[in-house]
Amino acid sequence: MKLAIVAFENFTDIDVFLLWDLLNRVTASDWSVQILGEQTHHTSRSGLTIPMHGHVQLANTSDVVLFSSGSETRQKMKDADYLSQFNLNPEHQLIGSMCSGALILAALGLLQGKQATTYPTAKQLLENFGVFVVERSLVIEDNIATAAGCLAAQYLAGWVIERKLGIQMKETVLTSVLPVGQGLSFH
Amino acid sequence: MKLAIVAFENFTDIDVFLLWDLLNRVTASDWSVQILGEQTHHTSRSGLTIPMHGHVQLANTSDVVLFSSGSETRQKMKDADYLSQFNLNPEHQLIGSMCSGALILAALGLLQGKQATTYPTAKQLLENFGVFVVERSLVIEDNIATAAGCLAAQYLAGWVIERKLGIQMKETVLTSVLPVGQGLSFH
Repeated sequence: MKLAIVAFENFTDIDVFLLWDLLNRVTASDWSVQILGEQTHHTSRSGLTIPMHGHVQLANTSDVVLFSSGSETRQKMKDADYLSQFNLNPEHQLIGSMCSGALILAALGLLQGKQATTYPTAKQLLENFGVFVVERSLVIEDNIATAAGCLAAQYLAGWVIERKLGIQMKETVLTSVLPVGQGLSFH
Repeated sequence: MKLAIVAFENFTDIDVFLLWDLLNRVTASDWSVQILGEQTHHTSRSGLTIPMHGHVQLANTSDVVLFSSGSETRQKMKDADYLSQFNLNPEHQLIGSMCSGALILAALGLLQGKQATTYPTAKQLLENFGVFVVERSLVIEDNIATAAGCLAAQYLAGWVIERKLGIQMKETVLTSVLPVGQGLSFH
């Protein structure tokens, strides 16, 4: 099982790192999470430089592909060269996005006639693609899910884990990061 | 205003990155967030290698010092050489911890006779220091705060921001990462 988180320059820190941490809490053999980009390293919005595990084209052979977000999505959605690198298929892959990452899904034609959510500042841009944007933290359309608001990354990760490994693993992973006294307890 | 997040090998990803992202959303001049370690780079529990901004001794001259967590805290709390590098003063600094990072605060003598919280798996170890451990997500004792459960990083960051810049900035920052429809809206 190959899971890809797609990043780029100025990616929103939490949107990448919360997915990364949660998906890595899964205990299952043959479960590999990679952060993909176009360069060997990318630097976050907050200035943290991290190594990529591979090129974005590896998304095409991944079982799960999740696009992160950031100001760069406004360029990527219009960048034919960037978009042409992807050959995703929601019949065989789970595909998702955080916040403005939905703009890339839309630009790839994956949200045609569908409902989706996105960060408030990207709502109009997403509607321009003909997407019906709804004010929800997670919108699931068969094998495509959009999440919005950074902390909704837990819902997107949860969707992936439940779809691949069942609700028990999802609950185990998500509970492990809850605030103490709010779902995580001493007993 | 210098803010330090103290990391080490096998640090828990979210505990560092959620603090990092949130504290970097503050818009204020003279506001600098640094991740400090003992090496030039440290690798997280999930295998992500990130550069440090400086050595842990810079914590001593920071206005805010927040310890992250991870399995390594069980070694650090017994490591006299590691601990001797810190000369923290809660009369002049805000000091905090995520999850098992409270073990380092205790080992530094900062939780003597105080209440604190920690990750469930570190509760007994923290009690061994004579700390009164309570099942809460955030425990504030004057200028010292302990938070537990990774997503409680938002409460710890919020405490820091409110103490330094007021409740308005805290609300602005914390709201910006809430799930859409759960505090973050389209209007």
